Amino acid sequence: MASFFGRFTSNSNSHSHSHAPSAPSAPSEPETYGHGNSQGTASPYYSQQHQPQPYGSNYGGVSSYGSYGFPPGTSPEVIRSFQMVDKDRSGFIDEKELQEALSSGYQRFSLRTVRLLIFLFRNPIDSSRMGPNEFTALWNCLGQWRGTFERYDRDRSGRIDAMEMRDALYGLGYAVPSSVLQLLISLYDDRSGRRVEYNFDSFVECGMIVKGLTEKFKEKDRHYTGSATLTYEDFMSTILPFLVSYS
Amino acid sequence: MASFFGRFTSNSNSHSHSHAPSAPSAPSEPETYGHGNSQGTASPYYSQQHQPQPYGSNYGGVSSYGSYGFPPGTSPEVIRSFQMVDKDRSGFIDEKELQEALSSGYQRFSLRTVRLLIFLFRNPIDSSRMGPNEFTALWNCLGQWRGTFERYDRDRSGRIDAMEMRDALYGLGYAVPSSVLQLLISLYDDRSGRRVEYNFDSFVECGMIVKGLTEKFKEKDRHYTGSATLTYEDFMSTILPFLVSYS
Repeated sequence: MASFFGRFTSNSNSHSHSHAPSAPSAPSEPETYGHGNSQGTASPYYSQQHQPQPYGSNYGGVSSYGSYGFPPGTSPEVIRSFQMVDKDRSGFIDEKELQEALSSGYQRFSLRTVRLLIFLFRNPIDSSRMGPNEFTALWNCLGQWRGTFERYDRDRSGRIDAMEMRDALYGLGYAVPSSVLQLLISLYDDRSGRRVEYNFDSFVECGMIVKGLTEKFKEKDRHYTGSATLTYEDFMSTILPFLVSYS
Repeated sequence: MASFFGRFTSNSNSHSHSHAPSAPSAPSEPETYGHGNSQGTASPYYSQQHQPQPYGSNYGGVSSYGSYGFPPGTSPEVIRSFQMVDKDRSGFIDEKELQEALSSGYQRFSLRTVRLLIFLFRNPIDSSRMGPNEFTALWNCLGQWRGTFERYDRDRSGRIDAMEMRDALYGLGYAVPSSVLQLLISLYDDRSGRRVEYNFDSFVECGMIVKGLTEKFKEKDRHYTGSATLTYEDFMSTILPFLVSYS
């Protein structure tokens, strides 16, 4: 595993499926998936309690820790990693630097996923690059996701199938309705008739799309009713950044 | 204008701005843009009456006119065009064929826009290719949009600026809020500091994103109140196809 993030997560997990330290416990009843649909009320498709904190804004803003500072208590490993990834020593990670850090010798992270990550963990001052706060949040989130991915990749092939992805997303707090799962599958269906599988890159891409859109939906559904009322402007402004981030 | 669609529209318009036959009349008061915002109710950002009919489903389904048939009354010019664009004579237009047909000698239509068009005008049986019905709907729509684009491209440079695009979209029935316009501008902002301009390709891409999302919103806002209530599943299923179509 030559990837920077890959090394980190592999070290942390000691190549063991059962010791991913920051990963949540496995869903005990993945067969309850989609139950919110039939019960109707107060059972949205996402968990109310169990959410990681990915956004830079959760750390109280850049100014609290100095212009280029890390959140208090950041692991020295994260700081060392930031310095290694920041090849041009600009104090920021750009998309090329992040792509290189995420890619391993045998698996390249797509620029599309990299852009999506930079968008979702965006720096409020310069949305095209990540500062220390954003990098730390991304690091913590990807460590958790790597652990979850490895738990479901039972044969250690580096790939999971669509049902395993559904269960993995459930483990991360997102109970994806089957219609949504079908759309996520079609994103990677090359129409060859082969079964769709996800490597870590595509798992992160699909999961981050689900996560990003779900967070936006929750902003409009503060009482967790499972539905939300949006104005036309809200609706358009919520969706367009996802399209823009893909350009 | 070596493009196939370009030739069609140039011929129809006789290179005159004032005679675009299928284009709607110019908005008499483009400065009323965004008025729905301040008035609050019953003033959505899109026109209730004035909508072109882009979707293949408006033609009553493929089976009504035979598997490979055109809608009744289709101009012979459209049928000839379909046969010319359908290079492999499969009875369907695929993305490469459509891209070639839309591109002119000096301006290539992006595959991204082509995929968005195939998605928005999709064939209910095979969503990756266009049949005669879908092609006819696309042809009519692009003819109208070309006329609108040329009316706002006053210096005939082949480009319009962001304010002209806003007015052109208004002319097509979409009053885009300024926050949404800003997002559309950022889609083409290369951060060089240069003013963002749109050629016909990017005008079609932005306009089709607005059109496609607005149509989806209207399905949930049948009484034109300007807001809509969506379940989580609705919300996700509405947005994901737009992301998928960009892949």
